[in-house]
Order: sequence, then structure tokens, then C-alpha cells
Amino acid sequence: MKLYTYFRSSASYRVRIALNLKGIQYDTESVHLLKSGGQQNSVSYRALSPLGLVPCLETDAGGHLTQSLAIIEYLEEVYPDAPLLPVSPGDRARVRGIAQTISCDIHPLNNLRVLNFLTGKFGLSVEDKEGWYSHWLTEGLLAIERMLIDDPRTGRFCHGNTPGLADCCLIPQVFNARRFNCSLERMPTIQRICLACEELISFHAASPVNQPDAEPENN
Amino acid sequence: MKLYTYFRSSASYRVRIALNLKGIQYDTESVHLLKSGGQQNSVSYRALSPLGLVPCLETDAGGHLTQSLAIIEYLEEVYPDAPLLPVSPGDRARVRGIAQTISCDIHPLNNLRVLNFLTGKFGLSVEDKEGWYSHWLTEGLLAIERMLIDDPRTGRFCHGNTPGLADCCLIPQVFNARRFNCSLERMPTIQRICLACEELISFHAASPVNQPDAEPENN
Repeated sequence: MKLYTYFRSSASYRVRIALNLKGIQYDTESVHLLKSGGQQNSVSYRALSPLGLVPCLETDAGGHLTQSLAIIEYLEEVYPDAPLLPVSPGDRARVRGIAQTISCDIHPLNNLRVLNFLTGKFGLSVEDKEGWYSHWLTEGLLAIERMLIDDPRTGRFCHGNTPGLADCCLIPQVFNARRFNCSLERMPTIQRICLACEELISFHAASPVNQPDAEPENN
Repeated sequence: MKLYTYFRSSASYRVRIALNLKGIQYDTESVHLLKSGGQQNSVSYRALSPLGLVPCLETDAGGHLTQSLAIIEYLEEVYPDAPLLPVSPGDRARVRGIAQTISCDIHPLNNLRVLNFLTGKFGLSVEDKEGWYSHWLTEGLLAIERMLIDDPRTGRFCHGNTPGLADCCLIPQVFNARRFNCSLERMPTIQRICLACEELISFHAASPVNQPDAEPENN
């Protein structure tokens, strides 16, 4: 099993956490999103991932899976140990709802290709770009905070007392928030869950700074 | 079971198709995204859907589920008849990957709150907004076309010869493409699958124009 990944890609980060939580061994191949016009745009990579996004998982059977949440659901089905989703359909929908709020309504607005479009095609300033980033991130994370704080199913982690799919998505998003100096002040539950996750080696080992292709922050 | 919906919301449209394909009876409550500053922003609706997005499904048990794909996965688990996902994990990942390419990498960039931000906060022109819309839609749908045309698992529908989750996402996105006059010329497989879907009453009945809250196009 091989993961096409980029250390700073938060969608890749989600899958790395999931692989670690399940104790699955995997190889990595770095797809550098900035070098040589973006290695994700090469013909060979686009043959695996037509939209040129990371991550992409090469399965042991030789298939290539795209989309981080589709990959994690695949891992959940093939490696059911250390489940990342709860048992009842209503609870599963809750966890998927939190994960998708991040993966559909926060992250896609703030990824590299979109930010480049704003500053490139539209000629917006760095300040405008940062305002855009902060707006969607803060609005989205405040909604997540409400989904967490208002629901008794929230435990030490997003759902109960074992880490799962929602945590796999939350931690990378918070990593980005910190990187862009977005305040988490009004999000005490998110902060508390992050602390709990950061104590776990599975999360720690998946962090961008601990990847083989990691670079210093100012790169 | 009650669906909070808006006729033109393509995420709501996905869930309406899924409910119809499974033959599930449901009530609807319209959440008008434009009237009175957006009914999705009311305190009462935000209590159900913290980010103020449609759809939201009220289950028979009284729970409230958000995120269209989380809702459809819930329906799939509770009402397994007329399955919307194939059986093998690899095939399920493929279908979810197509669905998420639409729900994560096309749709969130082009929904109402984002377009309003571009023309409002950034003061971009209608032309710029339409260029943005068309860019992400075309790039995304061309990737989907490749995922479909290059894979022998594509049949009459996105996966095999029965409609499923990927079709539930594709048809609403194509509806939007046509509404915004985006060309589908380079997407013969998508066009062919749309024709197959349009022959089915489940898709037809879910269409924006056939909703109780539908309005004329120029509204």
C-alpha cells in the first residue's frame, strides 16, 4: 500500500492519521505541490488522480483511490479493527457530518489552487487572501464547535472516548488554523479535543513536521 | 422523516434523488436561501444546521443530520434496499471518490455564500464571478469525465447499470452547469449518463423545477 502525499496537504494528513490509528504499514511517495509547476500536474500523476490532488492511495491490489474521505472509508471497510466510525447509523451520520463540514465547507475554499486563483487571476492582495482564509475557517470551525459542545455524544474526542473519522479531519484543519494565525479562542471544545489527540502517537507521527518530505516553515 | 430543502440547492437535490431511488416517503420544509436575509440564517434553523446550509434531514427518531453525503450514507445504512453503493470496498471507494470530487472540489466553490463573498466583500464583477464559476466547474467535470471514460466499471450510469451515489451528485451538478451556460461539449460520457438518469422518474421528480417551492428561472 502506497500513499501519494505532501507533507503540508491537510487531506493527506487526514489519511496518515487514519492509517496510523489502524496500525497499517504503508509506503509514501511525495508529490511536491510547489516544485516544477507542481508535481501534481504531471501527466503521470494526473493519470492516477485526474484532478491532480493529493492524497491518492495505491492499494495492494494496484487500484488508485482518490478523495481522503473515500480512502478512509475504504480503510474502515478493509481493516475494521480500530474502527473510525461508531456503530449506529445516526451516530455514523453525526461523525460523517462533522468530517464533511470540514472536508466540504472549510478546506476546499482554502486549498492552494484556490488561493492561487484569488491572488493570480483576480490579482487580490495577500491581505485579501488572508481575510478569505480566515473567514471560511472561522465560520466553519465555529459551526463545528457548536456541533460538539451542544451534543452529549462528544467525549474526550469528537465522538465518544476513542478517536475517529471526525478527529482525523479536525486536527489537520486546526494545524492550518494555527499556521495562518487564526484564533481558536471561541472554540474551547475544539481546543480540548486537539490536546487529547496530540497526546497520541498516531496523530503525532502523521503531523506535517514529521513527514520525510517536510520542509522548514518559511519554504 | 422531513427534509429541509431549497429547490435550487444542489446538495438538497442529491438527497431528494437518493430518497426517491429508495422509494422513501418524506415531508419537506423549504428553507428559502434568498428571502428575509436567508432563512438558513435564522436562529431556529441554525440550531439544526449550525453552518446554515441545506439540506438537513430530520429522522423519524427526531435527530437532525447535516451534509448531503452523510445523509445519503445514513439512508443507505437504514434502508439498504435499492443500494446506492456497490458491494466491494474498492468499488465503493470509486463511487465515493466521484461523489466527493463533486461535493468537495466543485460544489463548495460555487455555492451561494461563496459567490456572494466574491461580489460583495471583494467587489468582483458579475463577469469575474461567472469566470470563477465556470473555471472550477469545468476543471472538476473534466476530471470526472476522465474517471468515467477511462474505467470499464462505468456502465449506463457512473458505476454499472444501476443508478447510485455518484449519479445522485452528478445530475445536480450538470443541472447547475446548464443553468450557468457552461459547456459540456468535452464530456460525452457525462452527457450520456445524464440522458440515462433523465429517463428515470426518481431523478425527474427530484429536479428543482418539480419542487413545491420552485420559482421561475429569473427569480
